[in-house]
Amino acid sequence: MIIIGEKINGTRKAVAAAIREKDAQFIRDLATSQAEGGSTYLDVNAGTAPEREPDDMAWLVSTIQAVCDLPLCLDSANPAALKAGLDVVNTSPMINSVSGEQARIDGVLPLALAHQTDLILLALDDKGIPETVEGRMEIVRKLVGMALDGGLTQAKLHIDPLVTAISTGTGNAILTFDTIRAIRSEFPDVHITGGASNISFGMPLRPIINRYFMALAIQAGLDSAIINPNDRELKAAIMTAEMLMDRDKYCLTFNKAFRAGKIGPKPD
Amino acid sequence: MIIIGEKINGTRKAVAAAIREKDAQFIRDLATSQAEGGSTYLDVNAGTAPEREPDDMAWLVSTIQAVCDLPLCLDSANPAALKAGLDVVNTSPMINSVSGEQARIDGVLPLALAHQTDLILLALDDKGIPETVEGRMEIVRKLVGMALDGGLTQAKLHIDPLVTAISTGTGNAILTFDTIRAIRSEFPDVHITGGASNISFGMPLRPIINRYFMALAIQAGLDSAIINPNDRELKAAIMTAEMLMDRDKYCLTFNKAFRAGKIGPKPD
Repeated sequence: MIIIGEKINGTRKAVAAAIREKDAQFIRDLATSQAEGGSTYLDVNAGTAPEREPDDMAWLVSTIQAVCDLPLCLDSANPAALKAGLDVVNTSPMINSVSGEQARIDGVLPLALAHQTDLILLALDDKGIPETVEGRMEIVRKLVGMALDGGLTQAKLHIDPLVTAISTGTGNAILTFDTIRAIRSEFPDVHITGGASNISFGMPLRPIINRYFMALAIQAGLDSAIINPNDRELKAAIMTAEMLMDRDKYCLTFNKAFRAGKIGPKPD
Repeated sequence: MIIIGEKINGTRKAVAAAIREKDAQFIRDLATSQAEGGSTYLDVNAGTAPEREPDDMAWLVSTIQAVCDLPLCLDSANPAALKAGLDVVNTSPMINSVSGEQARIDGVLPLALAHQTDLILLALDDKGIPETVEGRMEIVRKLVGMALDGGLTQAKLHIDPLVTAISTGTGNAILTFDTIRAIRSEFPDVHITGGASNISFGMPLRPIINRYFMALAIQAGLDSAIINPNDRELKAAIMTAEMLMDRDKYCLTFNKAFRAGKIGPKPD
């Protein structure tokens, strides 16, 4: 499983404050703890102030790289911010994200192709998130086509089928699972990614819903996730589902995580 | 979801003692608490002493029926014990179980057909549990054929695809999921049932593995389960998976269980 650690995100209050105050220690601690939590990539989002975003992105990337050699996932819709990040990044990064929205296709996709980065593709466009598998697949097909034409391989693409709240439509989880299956069947070598939390908006017991959603998405074919890697219960959900789906040879990852105290009841 | 409460089982030490001492209150409490936990059926297993089993089964059935009007699932390989239970049972019961083992076909199946009971069918025979989907399906096909020939409907059959420990083969969960899909595709109106615990023998964190196994089995098509209905976490797994699979209209069952304090963090 590819884990994209989500916590360095300037739309979160504490992170926004740390960016504003250039609190490097706070950012480094977030990087280190997410690395220890088993992240494959660290997402880096500098927040939404367009005039400051490029400088903030560059500062974040440099600050993180001082303590952590994980590849970064530069998360912005702003080409200037992505450029600023790409200028200082050490390790081949991922870009988050291109969708079917024209502004992203025009502004972000050329950067990913120019730098041959890994790339997250979202199944939505200027009309929103389609409510059918086929609607989402049309966007995915178009975006994958453009990425491959630009020299990226399927293995560099992380496709997010997207999920909308179960509280607004009880078929919404199945729609995501079926889209995952359709992507996997049509593009066998891409990664399929997603977050765990949109599914549970408006519901009680959100963490429980998120965990089982993630497990069922893994059964459908998800192999990458944008999550808090320090959420023990969610990590247990992911490791257990992967083990049950025969993606954990000799149950080694599960047993190792258990022995290291990383899943299961929290040690006192 | 059809929940078959598993706790009145004479192979459990405390239940065996209660049967031996005719401790009716202990049995009644088990019946009542499992009914409150949302059971559809209560499994009734009188233990393994052949000479006492018929009397014990009759006593258990009468004792339970005095406080609880749920249908019972008479659980024995011993035709005499099943007969004793059938003689005193009030509500149309289920029988647990017939397999491809010749002794069960000769001894148990005729009772189910004579009384037109609901019936659990196990995908094993005298050679053991087949290690392929097709091997299990051959047994299932044979047993379903005999049941339908004897006048039962698909809706009266609960087929258990069986599961073996993930610790002895990392493909064992997938084998069960694929068997569930094959059963559902070939016999659309049967119920598909199973227990949650065999999957995790020999592993740490067994309850966690059991919960996610159950959720993934529900995604594959399981709609009946033989479980402890008072296991809050397992119930949450089942309700969440059913909701995500669009089998909970308006998320009503989930929300109702949450408001009643039946799932989620235990109230103090």
